[in-house]
Order: sequence, then structure tokens, then C-alpha cells
Amino acid sequence: MTANPPHSLAAQYSAVRAQTLALAAPLSEADCQVQSMPDASPVKWHLAHTTWFFETFVLAPHLRGHQPFDAAFRVLFNSYYNGIGAQHPRTQRGLVTRPDLATVRAYRRAVDAQMADLLGSTLAPGVAELVQLGLQHEQQHQELVLTDLLHLLSCNPLAPVYLPWAAAPAPAAAAPGWVDQAGGLVAIGDAGAGFAFDNERPRHQQHLRPYALASRPVGQGDWADFIADGAYAEPRWWMSAGWDWVRSQQITAPLHWRRGGSAGSGSGNTAGWQQFSLHGLQPLQADAPVCHISWFEADAYARWHAAQHPGSPPTRLPTEAEWEHAAQAVAPQALAGGNFLESGALQPLPASGGGLQQLLGDVWEWTASPYTAYPGYRPWAGAVGEYNGKFMVNQMVLRGGSCATPRSHIRSSYRNFFPTDARWQFSGVRLARDAG
Amino acid sequence: MTANPPHSLAAQYSAVRAQTLALAAPLSEADCQVQSMPDASPVKWHLAHTTWFFETFVLAPHLRGHQPFDAAFRVLFNSYYNGIGAQHPRTQRGLVTRPDLATVRAYRRAVDAQMADLLGSTLAPGVAELVQLGLQHEQQHQELVLTDLLHLLSCNPLAPVYLPWAAAPAPAAAAPGWVDQAGGLVAIGDAGAGFAFDNERPRHQQHLRPYALASRPVGQGDWADFIADGAYAEPRWWMSAGWDWVRSQQITAPLHWRRGGSAGSGSGNTAGWQQFSLHGLQPLQADAPVCHISWFEADAYARWHAAQHPGSPPTRLPTEAEWEHAAQAVAPQALAGGNFLESGALQPLPASGGGLQQLLGDVWEWTASPYTAYPGYRPWAGAVGEYNGKFMVNQMVLRGGSCATPRSHIRSSYRNFFPTDARWQFSGVRLARDAG
Amino acid sequence: MTANPPHSLAAQYSAVRAQTLALAAPLSEADCQVQSMPDASPVKWHLAHTTWFFETFVLAPHLRGHQPFDAAFRVLFNSYYNGIGAQHPRTQRGLVTRPDLATVRAYRRAVDAQMADLLGSTLAPGVAELVQLGLQHEQQHQELVLTDLLHLLSCNPLAPVYLPWAAAPAPAAAAPGWVDQAGGLVAIGDAGAGFAFDNERPRHQQHLRPYALASRPVGQGDWADFIADGAYAEPRWWMSAGWDWVRSQQITAPLHWRRGGSAGSGSGNTAGWQQFSLHGLQPLQADAPVCHISWFEADAYARWHAAQHPGSPPTRLPTEAEWEHAAQAVAPQALAGGNFLESGALQPLPASGGGLQQLLGDVWEWTASPYTAYPGYRPWAGAVGEYNGKFMVNQMVLRGGSCATPRSHIRSSYRNFFPTDARWQFSGVRLARDAG
Amino acid sequence: MTANPPHSLAAQYSAVRAQTLALAAPLSEADCQVQSMPDASPVKWHLAHTTWFFETFVLAPHLRGHQPFDAAFRVLFNSYYNGIGAQHPRTQRGLVTRPDLATVRAYRRAVDAQMADLLGSTLAPGVAELVQLGLQHEQQHQELVLTDLLHLLSCNPLAPVYLPWAAAPAPAAAAPGWVDQAGGLVAIGDAGAGFAFDNERPRHQQHLRPYALASRPVGQGDWADFIADGAYAEPRWWMSAGWDWVRSQQITAPLHWRRGGSAGSGSGNTAGWQQFSLHGLQPLQADAPVCHISWFEADAYARWHAAQHPGSPPTRLPTEAEWEHAAQAVAPQALAGGNFLESGALQPLPASGGGLQQLLGDVWEWTASPYTAYPGYRPWAGAVGEYNGKFMVNQMVLRGGSCATPRSHIRSSYRNFFPTDARWQFSGVRLARDAG
Repeated sequence: MTANPPHSLAAQYSAVRAQTLALAAPLSEADCQVQSMPDASPVKWHLAHTTWFFETFVLAPHLRGHQPFDAAFRVLFNSYYNGIGAQHPRTQRGLVTRPDLATVRAYRRAVDAQMADLLGSTLAPGVAELVQLGLQHEQQHQELVLTDLLHLLSCNPLAPVYLPWAAAPAPAAAAPGWVDQAGGLVAIGDAGAGFAFDNERPRHQQHLRPYALASRPVGQGDWADFIADGAYAEPRWWMSAGWDWVRSQQITAPLHWRRGGSAGSGSGNTAGWQQFSLHGLQPLQADAPVCHISWFEADAYARWHAAQHPGSPPTRLPTEAEWEHAAQAVAPQALAGGNFLESGALQPLPASGGGLQQLLGDVWEWTASPYTAYPGYRPWAGAVGEYNGKFMVNQMVLRGGSCATPRSHIRSSYRNFFPTDARWQFSGVRLARDAG
Repeated sequence: MTANPPHSLAAQYSAVRAQTLALAAPLSEADCQVQSMPDASPVKWHLAHTTWFFETFVLAPHLRGHQPFDAAFRVLFNSYYNGIGAQHPRTQRGLVTRPDLATVRAYRRAVDAQMADLLGSTLAPGVAELVQLGLQHEQQHQELVLTDLLHLLSCNPLAPVYLPWAAAPAPAAAAPGWVDQAGGLVAIGDAGAGFAFDNERPRHQQHLRPYALASRPVGQGDWADFIADGAYAEPRWWMSAGWDWVRSQQITAPLHWRRGGSAGSGSGNTAGWQQFSLHGLQPLQADAPVCHISWFEADAYARWHAAQHPGSPPTRLPTEAEWEHAAQAVAPQALAGGNFLESGALQPLPASGGGLQQLLGDVWEWTASPYTAYPGYRPWAGAVGEYNGKFMVNQMVLRGGSCATPRSHIRSSYRNFFPTDARWQFSGVRLARDAG
Repeated sequence: MTANPPHSLAAQYSAVRAQTLALAAPLSEADCQVQSMPDASPVKWHLAHTTWFFETFVLAPHLRGHQPFDAAFRVLFNSYYNGIGAQHPRTQRGLVTRPDLATVRAYRRAVDAQMADLLGSTLAPGVAELVQLGLQHEQQHQELVLTDLLHLLSCNPLAPVYLPWAAAPAPAAAAPGWVDQAGGLVAIGDAGAGFAFDNERPRHQQHLRPYALASRPVGQGDWADFIADGAYAEPRWWMSAGWDWVRSQQITAPLHWRRGGSAGSGSGNTAGWQQFSLHGLQPLQADAPVCHISWFEADAYARWHAAQHPGSPPTRLPTEAEWEHAAQAVAPQALAGGNFLESGALQPLPASGGGLQQLLGDVWEWTASPYTAYPGYRPWAGAVGEYNGKFMVNQMVLRGGSCATPRSHIRSSYRNFFPTDARWQFSGVRLARDAG
Repeated sequence: MTANPPHSLAAQYSAVRAQTLALAAPLSEADCQVQSMPDASPVKWHLAHTTWFFETFVLAPHLRGHQPFDAAFRVLFNSYYNGIGAQHPRTQRGLVTRPDLATVRAYRRAVDAQMADLLGSTLAPGVAELVQLGLQHEQQHQELVLTDLLHLLSCNPLAPVYLPWAAAPAPAAAAPGWVDQAGGLVAIGDAGAGFAFDNERPRHQQHLRPYALASRPVGQGDWADFIADGAYAEPRWWMSAGWDWVRSQQITAPLHWRRGGSAGSGSGNTAGWQQFSLHGLQPLQADAPVCHISWFEADAYARWHAAQHPGSPPTRLPTEAEWEHAAQAVAPQALAGGNFLESGALQPLPASGGGLQQLLGDVWEWTASPYTAYPGYRPWAGAVGEYNGKFMVNQMVLRGGSCATPRSHIRSSYRNFFPTDARWQFSGVRLARDAG
């Protein structure tokens, strides 16, 4: 794998498409078939849907003489584009055992061949942008392949392994600290240097009060302390809806944490815990970012943390503007040193170094910001206008990418979004506070 | 009823408490007993809980020698204050037939007598503020008494009447228009002139682009046109979650709208519709604001409206900052001329006059803003800190008060909030758009 | 109250109708309004529906010049007769606060006056039978008034009292034993001596092997032993569906049993338990029949009991034919000495005497028999044919009446029926076994 | 495939085990993986669980030196035997992608090899009976492999084919008629000639009134008439619980019937319908038995049929005693001529010949009898005692086997059972009536 995306669109296309197949390579047909919950999709579906995206939005309108691989796929692999037509119900994606995996691979090859033809020709205006969108779309699904697979494997009592992995010895982590930011009238949103989704636009001004960001995300050791203090049984740390969620779902730890590791596998409060990962069951790593937490948990942690430090400004989640403003300054280093899909770790790693660390990669960071339209937002024209805009309600913004995000896919203006109870992504949290 | 609040705290207390009883006066014990859905509460519960608020937060800590009326009420009538202790489950409020209504009235009298003693003495620091909070709290419940009752009566196939009412002839309404606002770096939030909830603070700066607000809320005639155009069957107007809601709940009109009025009861698309109100079934009024719509419907209407006016800047919901900035300038007139609880109409009325009309009163106006903490927000200390802060997620802000809001309760910085599918409040919508 | 039904139909009518009002007399309008679960109905609804039955099935077709009290009631108070037309949804009976209780009482008086006119005249063929059916129907609802009310009051954390009651000192109970029955080809079903429901007909033959019935129902002390042995946590005593029910509903004791009585309130395993009753919270009575158990619990108890007595024929539930055949011989004494509604105890009482005791009254006894049609069964003609036949699936038969059944309502051929998880009736269990 | 079971136990074992693999042979790993609803199981699970049965109940206790293939399988492939220990949750069987299909096949081979060793030795008392039980168990799962697969494929909008099949021309069917039975005191239950489940015992007497059985099951043409008469919209044909089911589930036809066949594919009311089968979409066959109906539908049909023939004794479902008594006389011919798994039709076929036809094979026939214990029933000792007894509640008996039942598996005393709303089995109905 390479961290540097190839330069020609055709080469980028080949590289991204190959990456998807590489992720599926270790999996059986059964692994690729199953949908473990309504929010997740089968790997086979991801393989097909990303192909459908190119066929539907690029080939059908722009390749002369295009014939669909199978006319039934237009409905079968449509995710949510009402502008394209009907959709096979999302919750029933795992029931489609035919076409089989070999047919879906053939579908990929057929579309790839036609895309090669198209990309070898002179593109009409706007087509390159659609292809670029398709590649960004496929990269998003690469991350989902891993998180959906992790969820599926976590449902298996035998705790199976996707890929074995030997952790490198972690360097000594610097003590976490606070990095002050001056605030003021700042600009956020896409600055126009490369691809951006419509939801990152337009760049606009926001007024920020002085604030500070934690130098790194909350760690697994921090979280074990939070649990040991009884935090999942104490309503005052929680939003009302979060407390309802904790009780009705009987939440007592991050998703994939399990009691029962040997006492020797950690120290302090991390002892006695294991976490299920793409490498199977593993001990906690105190200095690595906690992940697979919901917004409710991130928010509760901040309130609990504030109560542990009564003399300091109360900790809270950063707004997305605060996060992005700080990230603009350090993005190049964060990108170069970050733990992304390409590292092969497939899990967050301990921090090292100084300053604002791990802003990009490792874990998506929940923010205090609901996912809404920027002032002056306009969705893309046509059916691709359904890509982002229609989801701008009842979700919270996450920033920064994760260990499952391709490096070439992330940037400081990137906005991810999930509901407040979602946990199956590599989601963590970085604290903020008002300037002291 | 009187529009001018009395000046002494004791007199204010008496007036507000009497107002609550006046609302319940036309009701039977059965009417006061029933909880028609989990979101609503019985009138008897409202009568008791508002009393519990004074007993728990004012009398218990601040009246020497205070004895509780009934020790069991501390749990029974606690709404959601974990800082006070356990709560009778919200969904089971309607099952408590004992204490009966007479006992709850006696509870009110006993607490009122003790409050009179307390208010006749010299108050310790902070007590007056708690009493004021209790009165604001009771006024909120006055509105809920009416909306919860409306919901209960709407479940009765006999369409019963709370109070008969004869509509005055509506003056000719001015044609709706747009009122431009310059935007820039503006201040919103409580300016400190009187009571405000913690969620209105601190006053802070926001940067607004130039925008315009509609001169009045969307009318019932407008909404009938929206329906006639098939809007509830067309996904492209709706948020994804909104469209799921429309289909799963089979939504086809505002809550309380019913097909079947005589053709003569309206003109154009309002013909053939009736709406259930606190005065029973009534014809639509084309020029009166639509109400009992969800945020999903308000948002969809704005998108549909934009598509009907392709040459103009697309319409959308205003942000709460846009709304408040505009309201600051016209609040005194809006307050003086508004249709509030005291008018006795108990339903929105047709617009009249020019400029920004009906900003206060008639219907709560959904905004584009999720309900979140203002920068620098600090909840009140103690158990009353649970009043607002713990609900700042997955809800949207509404502004301006309604025909069921006491006039002395509303102000331009006031933030109401409900989930995106809530419809049983007097909720409507005013359009906004970017400056052309 | 009187144990001997009056002889004239008019006198019977007056007596039964007065009994219903007497049951409601201690209740407030709120008590009469609320529906505490979908299976239960408000007392006000019972008052109205029993009246509707006479109006719909007797007055409307048979009283010349009959005018309905309120035409809307035909739908509003129809329970489940599709032959009559539409029905207000069962789950929303508690939401109908108008008509109020006074109006429902007036409805009763108006129908009673018309019934008096009709019953003072010469009745057309079949009308007396319909009136008799209406009275039997009303007696069924008298029992439901009490069981539905008990459920409602049990939802109130204040444990309110319907009627105070002082238990008489219980005579020493005879030790329970077994009463042998020869079996053979026996006849069961209505023998034609008086009123019977269609489901008791036709009388027919069944072949029974020799068997024995326990001399009295399982007692509360027995049940406390069952619990103390961990029976609610041990799957081998339970039907598969019963075990699912125990776990999903977290069942650990009969309905209305509560931990927390003082240690002095019982002896052995009954200590530390209380039961909620129409007289409020009370200690257990070891020798009184356990009640408010489901069929699943009755069946599990029999299997547990068998395992405690490995040398004897395994205990089981009796079939309804076994029960009825045994009851035919002892019905007159059982009727004379039984604990019915008229005793005022409103709860099962300890056994006394010898032989087959408590067959009638005290508690309904679950049988091993699913509720099905007797061979040759024909439902009544017309809409009253919906009374019983359409419920003959997925329910189990109970026999013998309870402490809430009017004495004149019960007989040895009487078939009651409820689903296997129903517990809010006065339902208990008597063991049976094959002859040794 | 062969209709005559081999005689030695080892040969029987080999034949039955091979039959299971043959059924799975046309399927992909994905087809074998998916669980399409909680009631169904993946084919891979069936392959493993039937193997687990032999390993757990035969090899573990009776093969010296037995080592489990994988200790984790004891829990993973336990269906419902609490006596064996914990079980992987039924609803999550489809989530177990590891072990993969190849491992499950290896598991089968390993157990088969050990079984061959055991069966080649002298068996301890009772072992042959356990092996026989394991084979009967596996034959039950052979039928479930087909019905669960049919359900899975029916969820695929592409209507895939399990096996292609060319229907032979159907001989002209004799007109259906009635076959009288004298009744009286008859004996039913296992007569001891060969294997029987515990639920078929003991043979015992039942008293039957004279009755008649229809000469063949209700046909698809009959059912199309039932639908055309509006039967799914008319409450009077339905049990109360059945009517609730029809409305809440929006039932309008047998499972797998679909509107939309070409008008030429049938005549009369069968035109315009297709049915999904293991051979894909097919036209209806008027003279073939209807299948995939629930007990509710079977029962409603009988009531509707009675109303179409007012001069005749009303039709109804037969009791299981009526069915078995009639079947005892004709079982040999019915077995010889029946349409079973071995025919390869995998769907019911049109009737031919005279007298009582199709009693065995084609479709399971719903009866009027709830599934309960026979008088004197004793479950088998040990964990296999959970096989049948704990399911004897809230289910109805079906008789006769189907086109998916192995011929060597069925007999006249055989009792199948399913809940009243189950439809994914090959379930049909034969009418009965009292003697005229």
C-alpha cells in the first residue's frame, strides 16, 4: 500500500478499486454475505454498491453505448438515492445470496473495464468530478467494510481474527496537556485546494472565544478510570437521553470491551479488560485512544472529567469550528505522521511526540456540533445532491479520520456524522475547554 | 385575565397560581386524570408537579419548620430531577388515581399558604430568584396543560370542546413579503433586563450573513397548497429521517387536520379540511398560521417552497440567531399586539398589519438550529441545573411563543426546544432566505 | 348482597344491575376512568358496555319505538362484535373522558327504564334468553371490574385500598390429600338445567383413565416453597415458551407478590413476602390458595411438585373433563360453601373441611385443556355468535369461579379461558395425577 | 434417491446423512450461511446441529475415548437442550460465519467416522434407539433445510431457483368428495411397530362421533375462489386472533403467492397469480393442494366453505384423532403412492385416483387439535426428554407429512406442530364435517 495517491485519474481509479478488493481478500463468501445489524451492510454489498455508483452516475450518462451489467442491479444496489428510483430495503441487504460473490466480482471487473475506456478518452465537463466523487465514495465504504466486518465478527462467540497483527513496542507517550487557541473571527470550510464534499462548503466565518484543545484524545486508561469511578451508574454525568440509553441498552463500557482479561494484561484500572478488534481479543492499551464510544459517552466523560478538576475551566467537547481552526495549522504534519488504513494497524495506537497529536487518524473525534448546513450551503445538482444534505439532522459531527480511513481521503475540513448512540465506528473523543 | 403582571413577587405568585387553576376549571376529574401519550402528562399531574417545584426547591430548603404535605409526593411528582432522587415513571403518570383531584387541590392550597408566609418575610439571598424560576416553570406548564389536553381530547372520537369560542371577523391580511436584515457580527442571548433561563446565557456574538425573514408565518392556506401538490408523497422535499417518519407514521397532514369538512367551509385547497382545536372541530383559516407541524414538515415545506420560486434565493428555516437578531428590534410591538394565552383565542389568528408580524405569539416557530449550549454556558448550580442543560441534544429550537403562552413569559431570547417529530405543541414555521 | 338470585327476570335484572353499581360505589371518577393495560378496561367502560349490550341486543330489535340514548355509543361501547359494526379501539378505552361518569350513569338509568318497560310486557320468543345472556354477561364484567381495578391500583406506588377488610380467624385447615376418580366414558357439558353459554354445549362423552384430584388448590405456603427452591431460575420445570416468558418478563413470583413484609408476618418461606390486594398490602396466608399465577407458572409448579415426590405418579394439571366430571358430584355443596363475590372477602381464603374443597369459588383453576370447541359445537345465531366461538384458539380453560365471581354465575360446566401468560385474574391451580 | 430405507442401522445412518448433504449440494456458501427470519436457521447450522446431535447424545456418552471435534461446538450448535447447557442465541445463528462451511463439512466427516466405528461394534442397551432418534431428527431437519431455504430465496427480489423442474402432465383429477367414518371409541397413538416419538405415546382411546373427511386437501383453485370472494377482508370467517393477524400483518394470500402472472397461466380465479417455489416463480395449479397457509387461514377457509354450502353439515378442521383413525386404514397405500421428498417434485402435486387421497405427503394438514400430551404421556428420560414435551402449548397439530418429508420418516401416528401463524412449512388443509 502507498500513502501517496497516484496522479492520473485512471491510476487513482485503479488504486482505489484495488484497495477495496484487498480488504475483502482474507474473507470467505460467508464473511462477505452477512449483515449483522441494520446499520451495517454486507461486504459483498459494499463491493457491489461502490461499483453501482460508477455505473449509475458515470457510465450510464456518459459512456456512449453503455449497457448495464444487470438491469436488476439498479434497484438492488441503490443505497438511498430516490432520484435514481426504488431501493432494495436496507435491512434486507444480507438476505440477497444471489448474485453470489463471484458474480459481484465479475460486476466490478466489467465496470472497471468500461471505466478504463471512459478514462482513456476525453472527458466531458463535470465527468472527472463525478469520478473523483465515486473514488471518495469508495474510500468511505472501505472504512465501512472494516467497521461493519468488525461488528459482524464481534457477534461470533469464537472471537475470530480478521488479520493477525503484532504490535510494535510503543514509544513512551508524552504527558497529555492543553494547547491554547486564540479564537476570534475565523474561517472554516473547504478552501478550494482539492476535492471536497458539498457539506464542507461554503467556507465561511465563525466567531470563536479563546479556547484550548487537549493535546491528544482520551486514552483507554483514562476510560478505565471513568468506569472504575462508577460513571455508567451515575446520572449526573449524562444527558437525559444518554442516561435513558445507558439504562435501556444496559451500557457499561465501550463497544467491544469485555471483562475477563488476565490480571497481568494491564495495570491499574485497565487490568481485567479486553477489547475485541480486527486482530481478535487484545488487552487494553492505556495510552492509545479509546474508541467505539458513542457521543453520549464522549459527552458524559467530559462532564465527569470536569468534576475531577474543579479548579480548572470545565472540560467539554470542542465545536467543529474549534477543531477545524486548530487543525488547519497542523494538518500537514498530522497527515504525514497519522495512523491511517495504510499503516495496517487497524486500531488506534499510543500517542507520541508533542503539541497537538493524533488530530488526523487513529480515531474519529466526536464534537459538540450537530451536523447542519453551513451558511449558504447548496447541495450538488441532480441525484448526487442526496449524498449529504438530506442527513443534516439528528446527527453529530466527527472530525479527523481514523485508523480505518485512507490517508488520501481525509482533510481538516472533512465532516463525518453519526447519531448520538452510534458506536461501531472507530469513534473517540478529544477534550476542549474555554481559555482559563 | 390580565396582560400586565403584578409587581410584587407575592402578587405575581398569586396571579400565576390562579391562572393555572383557571385553566383546569372547565375540566372534570376524568379530564384531569388521563395521560394520552408518553410525551403528555395529566392535568392533575401538572397541578401537582408545579406545586412540588415550590415545595421542593423553595419551601423545603428555605422555610423554617417546613413539613412536607405528603412525604410520598417527593418521588411521585418529581419529573426528572435526579439530584432530588427517584421519580415515578413518566409513562405511568396517568395511572395514579390516588391522590384524587381534591387532594391535589388541597396540596396546592397548603403550599400556597406556606409560600405566602415565606413571601411575607425577608427572603434570604437567591430565594426570590428561585420563586421567579418556579413561576416561569408554572407558566411553561400552563401551556402544556393546554397542549396535553388538546391531544387528549383529539383522541376522543366525539370531538369534545374544551371551551366554546366565537371567532371575530378577521381583518384583511396584508400580503406576505420579505423583510431584509443586514447581518454581520451580532449579539444574541439574554441582555440581563429581567428573568432568563440559564440556556439563554451568556450573551455572545455570532456572525450572520445578510438574510431576509418572511413577514409572517406560513399560513394554513399555504399548507393546503403544499398538500394538494402531493408533498407528503414526494421524497425530494424531505430529510431522509423525515421521509422515514412520514412513511412509517403515515403522515399526510398537520396533526389535528382532518378530511371531511363541508366544501363551503373554505376556498381553494382549504376546502374539505377541518382542524380539531380546543374549540372542537373548525374549518381552516387560510390566513392564520399553520400549527401542529413537526420540524420535519417545516423543513420540507421550505424546500418545496424554494422549488416553486426558482428565480429567488432558496427559502429555508431561519437560524435561531437570525430569528433573535430580527426580533430584538420589534419585540415591544410584537409583545403588545401578540396573540397569547390571555387573548382567549387558544388558536393562531390571521395576520394583520405590516412589517414583521406575529413574531411573538400565535405559533412557536421552528428554526434551523439544533438546541445546544451557547459558548460559555454554565448550568445553574444544584438540582435546578438539570432544568435545561441535560436536554441539549437531538432537539431543535423554536422561538417566539404561541397562543397558549402567557404574555409575561415570552421574550426575544427565549429558547424552546422539541424533537424533530413533535407536533402536539402550537408549532409553526416562518421562512427565511439569504439576501438576494 | 344475597346469594339467592330472585326468581322473576325483572327482579334478576334489577339485582344484577344494582350489584354492578355497588361495586363502583367506592370509586372516584378518576378510578373509573383509567385503563392500566391493554387487557384491562376502565370501570366506566364496563358500566357503559354492559348497558350497551342490553340496548343493542335486546332493546334495539325488540322494544317498539326504541331510540338510542346516544347514537355514537353504538361504536364507542362495542367491544368486539363485528356483526354490529365498527369498534372504538380497545387500547384507547381509557382516553374517552367524555361522556363523563355522570352521563354513563344516566345511560344506565335510561336503559334500565326501557328494560323495565320491556320486561313488564309479554316477551317475544327468544327475548328472555337474550336478557338472561345480558345478565350473565354483566356478571362476567362484575368480576372484570374487580380484577381490572386491582391491576390499576397495583400500579400506584402508594398501594391504595379499594375496601378495608378484617380477615376472620381461619379455622385449622385439613391436610391436603388426593381424591380418586374412576374415569371411564363420562359425559361433560351443559346438562340443560339452566342457562349455559354456547361453549358448554353439546353435552358429550369423553373417555377418562382413572385419576386423582388434589383435595384443594395449591396454597400460598406451597408457592413460597416453590420460589425458595429457585424454581423461577430453573428451566427444567418450564415449558419452552414459559421459560422465554419468565426471562423476558423477569418473572420471579405471582403477580402482586412483593418482597418486603416484616419477618413476623408469616412463617417459613412465606415470611418476607406481602401481596397487594383489594384491601391493600397484606401478608401471605399459607393455607389460602395462591392466585394471580399464569398457566405457565401453574404448569411449572406441577412439574416441580412431581420431582419432589419421586415415588408417586407425577403430578400434572387436570384436564377440563377430569375437573368437570369430579365437580358434577360435589357441585351443590361446593356452591353452598364457596367463597364468591358475595362473601366480601375479595380474596381467596384458607381451606377447611374434607373431601374436594374449594372447587367452586376462591380461585379459577387452570386446566391442561386448551380452549376448543366441543364436538358438535354450534355458535349462537347472529352477532351474539361472536360471544365465545371466535376466541377458541391459543387460550387455556380455567374452571370453578373465584372470590370475585357472583355465586349465581358459576356452575360445574362453566368454561373460562385466558392466554397462558395472563395473571391479573384470580387464577390458581389444583393438581391432578394418574391413578397410582 | 431411494424410497426403501436400508436395513442395517449403519446403512440407514449412511443413507440419511448422505441425503442431507445431497440437499445442500446445489447451494453456495452464502446460501448456506443466511438466516432469513428468527424461525428459520441457516443450512450450515442444520448441517452442524444434526451432527452435534450424534456427537452429544451418542458419541460423547457411548464411544470410548471420544474427543469432541471442537469443544466450542457444544454450545454453538445446541438448539434448545437446557440439560446439555447453554445455547448460542437462536436469532443469531446466521451471524456465525466462522467455522466456515468447509469446517462444518469436516465436522460431519469426523463424526461420521466415529459413528461408523461405534456402529461396527456391539451396542450397549439403548444406543440403537438413540441412533434411530438421531436419524429421525436429521430427517426432520432435511425438511427444514428445504423450507428455510425456500423462505430465504423468497426474500430475494430476483426470485432465484434452487433446482429447475419440469412438471409432468397432471392426470385428470377425480372430483373431490366426502368419505364417511363411523367413529366410536377408537384407539390412536403409536402401535409399537417401529420408531415413534414420545409424543405419539401412549396409544389410548378416544370417543369420536360419526364424521366425514374430504377425499383430498383444499386445492389452489379453491383458495383462489376464497380470495376472489373477499375472504381476507371479511372478519366473520376468522378467529378473533386470526383477524388481528390478518390486519396487522396485511395478509391477503398464502405465503409465496404473488400477483402478476400472465392471464394465460391459469383459468378462473387462479389467473393472475403466481407462486414462488423451490423451482422459482410458477403458475398456480388448480387441482394441487394449497400450501404455505397458517392455521388461521385453514380455519377461516372451513368457516367460509360452510357458508357456501348452507344445506350441508358445516365444514370444519378434523381433530387429530379423526385424522389418525381414518389414516390407519389407508396408510400403506398412502405411503406407497405419496408425493414425498424422494419424488423430487418439492411441491404439492394434483390429486388423482379415488377414496382418501394424499393423506400422506404433498402437504401437512392442519387439524383442530392443539398440541398437548396424550393421557399418560411421559417424556423420554434425560436431556432428550426436552425433544417434544416442552413445546406442548400454544401450537396446533399437523398431520401427514409433505412433499419435503422423507418417505421413511412419516406414519399415521406422527404429530407435527406449529403456532397458528406459521406459514413457511408446506402446510395445507383437509376439511372435515360431522356425519350428515
